[in-house]
Amino acid sequence: MTRKDAGTLVDVSALQSALQAFADARDWNRFHSPKNLAMALTGEVGELVEIFQWLTETQSAEAARDPATAQAVRDELADVLIYLVRLASVLGVDLDAAVREKLAANARRYPA
Amino acid sequence: MTRKDAGTLVDVSALQSALQAFADARDWNRFHSPKNLAMALTGEVGELVEIFQWLTETQSAEAARDPATAQAVRDELADVLIYLVRLASVLGVDLDAAVREKLAANARRYPA
Amino acid sequence: MTRKDAGTLVDVSALQSALQAFADARDWNRFHSPKNLAMALTGEVGELVEIFQWLTETQSAEAARDPATAQAVRDELADVLIYLVRLASVLGVDLDAAVREKLAANARRYPA
Amino acid sequence: MTRKDAGTLVDVSALQSALQAFADARDWNRFHSPKNLAMALTGEVGELVEIFQWLTETQSAEAARDPATAQAVRDELADVLIYLVRLASVLGVDLDAAVREKLAANARRYPA
Repeated sequence: MTRKDAGTLVDVSALQSALQAFADARDWNRFHSPKNLAMALTGEVGELVEIFQWLTETQSAEAARDPATAQAVRDELADVLIYLVRLASVLGVDLDAAVREKLAANARRYPA
Repeated sequence: MTRKDAGTLVDVSALQSALQAFADARDWNRFHSPKNLAMALTGEVGELVEIFQWLTETQSAEAARDPATAQAVRDELADVLIYLVRLASVLGVDLDAAVREKLAANARRYPA
Repeated sequence: MTRKDAGTLVDVSALQSALQAFADARDWNRFHSPKNLAMALTGEVGELVEIFQWLTETQSAEAARDPATAQAVRDELADVLIYLVRLASVLGVDLDAAVREKLAANARRYPA
Repeated sequence: MTRKDAGTLVDVSALQSALQAFADARDWNRFHSPKNLAMALTGEVGELVEIFQWLTETQSAEAARDPATAQAVRDELADVLIYLVRLASVLGVDLDAAVREKLAANARRYPA
């Protein structure tokens, strides 16, 4: 078991380590510039969007009911998250801190 | 303090709760269909990509050295993560499980 | 032969007619809301970006030399243009006029 | 007046020339690798998508009725087209031929 601070919103440290090991084992670090990873992220978001493009909003909310669509959604969400976390790693960005700042800014910008 | 299983790669449960509370307090759930959130994710990825579009790969790797660029990168990474986590929530997708499956598939597809 | 004004920068009228006939013949107009077409455009741009994501800038400039890559590039550029022109049609936007305005604005914003 | 063949679907030759002259006058050709232009295209599509992200499909179809939204749509459609045409130019792709091939393929793939 590991512990995290009570205030942690995002903990992707284990995924970051796994992705670094994966890249190291395949000599992929040289491809993983922020520029390239931002493009890879774009490609995966495009695949995610394609799942929903011809669905109505109501149909999109029920996407998880169809097993094939549900699997496609899981796959694409995972791909997007993987590239996002990898990009944050190579840029040295602490996602938990970044999200925390952004939520505070959003709370000021959009009062409840 | 909270605890997570040793095998957890991604823990965004606290962020999911925070985003749900944020949407509830502003009556935003009606806007948060998967279709709409996928579009919002696209918009934020577009803003992230714009930071890197005219940089060389080498310059992109040094983006965090310039304070203004570093802040822009943090902001956009946070926005992308927020919409991604929110999208997974409304679809009922367990991101940790989805990432785990995807990494296993990638390991088979790209042997070290 | 058709004629266009000397000042025309973009003439996609024949493509707009062909796409309208294609949609009519398949009863696809009900899917072609601007929202849906913007998503379809996103998906195609994602596929285009995937071609270049792991290439260096120099390699990207030579993409047309490899026949398979050249074909992929042609296919994706065509898909992007098709959805863009269709989107402009359903929104009633005159692309030639819009581009003309934008170029004038760009000339003021970025003096030579 | 210029002439085009009766079968032409897309004529962007004048825009291509205008964009080349614009880049030449600002010494921008060195930034215009296909990789960079594909990223710039992504950014503009992101801005276009943001216009529609919280609208229903029906609202999106009426976007042109609000003057401010209509202007934003025109601006973003123009930006997307400009980068798309520029990208085709630097890659040496004939957009008219590419679209023609794609439409023929689509007609085979989706019989009326």
